[in-house]
Amino acid sequence: MSTLLENLNWRYATKKFDATKKISESDLNTLKEAVRLAASSYGLQPFKVVIVENPELREKLKAEAWGQTQITDASHLFIFANDLNLDSKSVEAYIKNISETRGVPTDALGGFSDMMNNVISNLSNEAKNIWTSKQTYIALGTLLSAAAELKIDTTPMEGFSPAAFNEILGFDKLGLNAVVVATIGYRHDEDDSQHYKKVRKSQEELFITL
Amino acid sequence: MSTLLENLNWRYATKKFDATKKISESDLNTLKEAVRLAASSYGLQPFKVVIVENPELREKLKAEAWGQTQITDASHLFIFANDLNLDSKSVEAYIKNISETRGVPTDALGGFSDMMNNVISNLSNEAKNIWTSKQTYIALGTLLSAAAELKIDTTPMEGFSPAAFNEILGFDKLGLNAVVVATIGYRHDEDDSQHYKKVRKSQEELFITL
Repeated sequence: MSTLLENLNWRYATKKFDATKKISESDLNTLKEAVRLAASSYGLQPFKVVIVENPELREKLKAEAWGQTQITDASHLFIFANDLNLDSKSVEAYIKNISETRGVPTDALGGFSDMMNNVISNLSNEAKNIWTSKQTYIALGTLLSAAAELKIDTTPMEGFSPAAFNEILGFDKLGLNAVVVATIGYRHDEDDSQHYKKVRKSQEELFITL
Repeated sequence: MSTLLENLNWRYATKKFDATKKISESDLNTLKEAVRLAASSYGLQPFKVVIVENPELREKLKAEAWGQTQITDASHLFIFANDLNLDSKSVEAYIKNISETRGVPTDALGGFSDMMNNVISNLSNEAKNIWTSKQTYIALGTLLSAAAELKIDTTPMEGFSPAAFNEILGFDKLGLNAVVVATIGYRHDEDDSQHYKKVRKSQEELFITL
């Protein structure tokens, strides 16, 4: 059986974290690498991941997330924030990165650069926001898989006020927008949810073959 | 080192698939299970995954995807389509599934049911469409990780006309909307991209710690 399938069956959305257990630096690095290596459209990675360690900030965030205790009890809090300023400068930086990483002249990447600039410049701000937001979910899915491999618990969360999170974290100045959150750590012994059977649609319901 | 990290480093967006190589039934089942087990908001899984085997359909889809050869050459084509009709009936079916899977009476799930219905009924159709679309990207990220574990190549694709795909696949009648595509199979020996170094932002660029 696939190890990943075993890990996906093991994981669940943790309701109560053990606040005394912390992720090791080595494991944290693995989780960050998984996010970093995740696929994104054109490879642009149009987002940042903000790791909130400051306890006061986490208390403030919890108040804007229906008081969900995972925000403060989890070992680590990852906030995926899409880049509101994706533009030709972002493309230029990406092309420079490709050029340096692969040792190819930027001139040879002109077609790729033009294509991305064309796509981006034709998007309304709203459409661009939706598009860049979606990319964070690929990274989130990759993070959940990586954490499960390390037997680290996770709860992805959308139940918070993005506007309040943006305000508390100073995202407006950074051109960022809070999209989705992952709380990461170790389940509490008393979290009954860990004993519940996983509920999913059947393959027959989820898949259509044409 | 994490096996998943090795797998993520191994994978790349395949430009040219070997059309003679097919995924085994057993591996296909693993990929479907990974998608099925992926996390989603509230666990609602508000989407379907359409696997297109019909060669004529794939030719038609290719024409609406900038002629990208992965659409026809890949062993398998997964089209993630969000559910445009997510409503109280969807919630009812989900609650029934939880009740049957866990052996708890539906009455005991009333609060959870009310909460989901409240959230869904307060979303505009557009906001609901964005929200359900995002959920498919978690499943996509999980699929890419699962395929890499099996040393199966993948290319996620957004470069297609959703309207044309919806028309070709009869999605309007099914209440579905094509969001994102994964082409899945085995890289062609002649795909030069497999030799390129992976380009990603550095951890310093991607992460902010507060």
